[in-house]
Amino acid sequence: MSSPTNDLRPLNSDFDDAAALAAAVVRLLVERRAMLMLAEGSTGGLLGHLLTMAPGSSVAFLGGVIAYGNRLKELIGVPKETIEKEGAVSAPAAQAMAEAARCWSGADLALSVTGIAGPGGGTPGKPVGLTFIALAGKDGSTVEEHRFDGDRDAIKMKSAMAGLAMLHRLLAAKG
Amino acid sequence: MSSPTNDLRPLNSDFDDAAALAAAVVRLLVERRAMLMLAEGSTGGLLGHLLTMAPGSSVAFLGGVIAYGNRLKELIGVPKETIEKEGAVSAPAAQAMAEAARCWSGADLALSVTGIAGPGGGTPGKPVGLTFIALAGKDGSTVEEHRFDGDRDAIKMKSAMAGLAMLHRLLAAKG
Repeated sequence: MSSPTNDLRPLNSDFDDAAALAAAVVRLLVERRAMLMLAEGSTGGLLGHLLTMAPGSSVAFLGGVIAYGNRLKELIGVPKETIEKEGAVSAPAAQAMAEAARCWSGADLALSVTGIAGPGGGTPGKPVGLTFIALAGKDGSTVEEHRFDGDRDAIKMKSAMAGLAMLHRLLAAKG
Repeated sequence: MSSPTNDLRPLNSDFDDAAALAAAVVRLLVERRAMLMLAEGSTGGLLGHLLTMAPGSSVAFLGGVIAYGNRLKELIGVPKETIEKEGAVSAPAAQAMAEAARCWSGADLALSVTGIAGPGGGTPGKPVGLTFIALAGKDGSTVEEHRFDGDRDAIKMKSAMAGLAMLHRLLAAKG
């Protein structure tokens, strides 16, 4: 996963790793003939940017919704009650986002990310860095809970990386 | 607009410039109490990523659609006939994307980008780098045509930068 040594941009290595993982995900999606949809909360478009760095990604990447506020979540079909009852940063909200994004778009797979990237917005129960990532397919959805540290940029990048890793594991396991 | 000299990451300067411009756009949106929506074609999420790097951007950034394939363009209300007749990379398609994204989301402003990031997909009439950027508000929409050079990454970054500059000009002029 590590990128080749490039002394000219040492601080880019996290980004380069994520881009390499995104390219591997695109290759697996193409092999499996699966179309992917995103519902990006706290990553804000970063996952889409990483996936579309790979030339030819349009074969496997349908697109996404950057559901930054709650309105877009509701427009694609996330139940208002789920967000009101559980909060937008919760396992049920992440699963509802992935399932709604898949149904709304007609994609085979949908990945969602919802979290608190900070620096504001944290509470004792839901601190900055808390992130839920869900993956929906035809057999339902699974969700992961993460607590990432670092600043806003680092939390966004770690969230994107974890989402790509979840996709890669699923696609690689399908063998 | 140039970022402070940072010898550790010289190759990041375009990205840093774009992030600084995105932060300035967010500040102007907050001042003007305007909510922004994106319809990202060839930028693939990069604009959303740049805008959400700014802490507190959720006050002014409603979200976006990464309309990478045509299906999502149609789902938000871009007329199928516009894409069939003019092509997805055209001035009318860019304007229809911005107007549809604004109506669908209820945002005050919507910015769209549609272009050919390459390396494939170019034709003599519509070469790699051709990009249309449109901005829709309550009084209608305006569109710009650009021809960017460079590789896929460079074309995405120049497209995002041009979109942010268009937004910044509009918001700064509103004084």
